Amino acid sequence: MKKFAFLAAAAAVCAAIATPATAQFAKPEQAIKYRQAGMALIGSHFGRMAPVAKKEAPFDAAAIAKNVEVLSVLATLPWAGFAPGTEGGDTKAEAWSDAKGFKQAEDDFLAAMGKLKTAADSGDFDAFRVAFGNVGKSCKICHDAYRKDN
Amino acid sequence: MKKFAFLAAAAAVCAAIATPATAQFAKPEQAIKYRQAGMALIGSHFGRMAPVAKKEAPFDAAAIAKNVEVLSVLATLPWAGFAPGTEGGDTKAEAWSDAKGFKQAEDDFLAAMGKLKTAADSGDFDAFRVAFGNVGKSCKICHDAYRKDN
Repeated sequence: MKKFAFLAAAAAVCAAIATPATAQFAKPEQAIKYRQAGMALIGSHFGRMAPVAKKEAPFDAAAIAKNVEVLSVLATLPWAGFAPGTEGGDTKAEAWSDAKGFKQAEDDFLAAMGKLKTAADSGDFDAFRVAFGNVGKSCKICHDAYRKDN
Repeated sequence: MKKFAFLAAAAAVCAAIATPATAQFAKPEQAIKYRQAGMALIGSHFGRMAPVAKKEAPFDAAAIAKNVEVLSVLATLPWAGFAPGTEGGDTKAEAWSDAKGFKQAEDDFLAAMGKLKTAADSGDFDAFRVAFGNVGKSCKICHDAYRKDN
């Protein structure tokens, strides 16, 4: 009986996990906080590699590969926080009015991140440097178009 | 020549990547922002599983395992942001004055997270529910001791 009651209740409840990403956040402020936190971590883990890419710091292939592995997980996160109804924060209205362009910018970033992962895993500095630059470009294109005060 | 100059410069420069975690942040504010962002993401990815653990939402084993995989990466991140010299933010001074206790709380949390990963990967609801509760307890113990206004 207890099990049946649970199953019945479960079927009736909107599950944060089982529903689309948008349902992860009960309030728009939570989505805004989430995407800002995600972007902050992406910025930190990406930015800390800049001295290496600029040859101002030594290339430690293992450390770079490990950092890019973390960054690859972080890179997938913020997008769920840009659902319709979460307008505001540091994001221009264009991210929603031009949803297709915003999605393309997300896809381009994730594609560039995929190439950075491959390059970092290869341990080749030049491949890393090129791929790092291309990820940076994809960040800039999206920020120029969709981020406020930038 | 250019290569030699690079090597010489590289050897002389303090590399963010090659040095301890503390050097990832040029300023204390960056460390504070980083750890707060990390904690916000951990809170989101942990908290969204609460309705499942409380049987208020259905248990989707694959979705839980995927979310715990992300959470396991996030769980390792904030600690680098609590280096000496980064006092402040939402953290009590005890996190530094009682550094041993704080490190123990970090270790206990990561151990509980390891068990949650195993439980989530097993696909067993009861194992997940118990491990989820234990992670929650480790969060609370650390927050009660070291987080302000809590």
